[in-house]
Amino acid sequence: MREEFQAELTEVTRLLVTMAESVRAALRKATTALLTADLEAAQAVIRRDADVDAIFQQVEAKVADIIVRQAPVAVDLRRAITALHISADLERMGDLAEHVAKTAARRHPSPAVPAELRQVFKGMAEIADQMAEKITDVLTHTDAGLAAELEKDDDAIDDLERRLFKIMLADDWPYGAETAIDGALLGRFYERYADHAVNIGEHTIYLVTGEPVTSQD
Amino acid sequence: MREEFQAELTEVTRLLVTMAESVRAALRKATTALLTADLEAAQAVIRRDADVDAIFQQVEAKVADIIVRQAPVAVDLRRAITALHISADLERMGDLAEHVAKTAARRHPSPAVPAELRQVFKGMAEIADQMAEKITDVLTHTDAGLAAELEKDDDAIDDLERRLFKIMLADDWPYGAETAIDGALLGRFYERYADHAVNIGEHTIYLVTGEPVTSQD
Repeated sequence: MREEFQAELTEVTRLLVTMAESVRAALRKATTALLTADLEAAQAVIRRDADVDAIFQQVEAKVADIIVRQAPVAVDLRRAITALHISADLERMGDLAEHVAKTAARRHPSPAVPAELRQVFKGMAEIADQMAEKITDVLTHTDAGLAAELEKDDDAIDDLERRLFKIMLADDWPYGAETAIDGALLGRFYERYADHAVNIGEHTIYLVTGEPVTSQD
Repeated sequence: MREEFQAELTEVTRLLVTMAESVRAALRKATTALLTADLEAAQAVIRRDADVDAIFQQVEAKVADIIVRQAPVAVDLRRAITALHISADLERMGDLAEHVAKTAARRHPSPAVPAELRQVFKGMAEIADQMAEKITDVLTHTDAGLAAELEKDDDAIDDLERRLFKIMLADDWPYGAETAIDGALLGRFYERYADHAVNIGEHTIYLVTGEPVTSQD
């Protein structure tokens, strides 16, 4: 029974990997849309978010099915429930990538991000992308070291967000309120995406091993 | 067995009601902190968010315990899992109230919100407060009509958020980027709080009746 449970949980993990790959691709494409004012890319991200939502529903159904048929207890039950949390975090990451794409689409054909902020957003997007890649790796190989790295990546994103605000709040900021508002909200989308990635790293170690990872702060 | 399950689920619902009351009180106090630059109120909200997080953990433990001892299947199992979703939404509402409080604290002794935006934030806070009250009522009396009202309340919040942006983007907006950024982020905190309230309304009907409520959009 335990082996069967393990096999079924591995299937759920495979669905989570597919979700992680999708939300990674979504943020990459959304960032392209944002930095190159590419409307088609933005629309593709918005359209495809439904796929992530569909897998979220599949995970829910599959986990409920496993609980009923395998009747896991104690740590195993917690692991099954943890899969639901990971799925919810991934679903939200998809939404946040969609928000970035929507901001790009709303400003098209103008760029939503002025030249002064491009480097910061490139930096945030790169780290967020690495985090999404690490999530996939943690889900596939259960690497607790990688899960711990996500915390540091998140700190780097927070630093870049502070840098973003510093630029927008400087006395010589040449743009008005609209660009500052877009910048602040976009910064928050990347930062929240990273927060969910950190959650997933911790949850995944528990999902796969049954051993909790406690965050350092 | 089914009756026992029902009784235990009612206990979980009681915990959720306590959480809903807490996050309602938190946003009320955070709004006071915001609109009157009351540092003590802000700090109280920040301090008490840990209480909501603690109940969140209790709900998780209790639901896992119910699943193991009662072995619910089909709709009943889904209902138990739905309680976890509601708890996650409530936990997030607590975080958002805390974000409002932190913004107020960061700007203290200056007000974070200029006179021009006070009415909009008062309006958003009032609707958000009514929504939090309705959640408590839906959890207590399973009123599907109230759950449906939450959708309309959410539309009203979205309207106010658009109004907020319109004010900040007007040509005669007398403040700089900093106030606009605070305004945009605060608007988003209230709007997300309302989104979670809508989710909870739908989930709660399912939790208590096993009948899904489909949202209208």
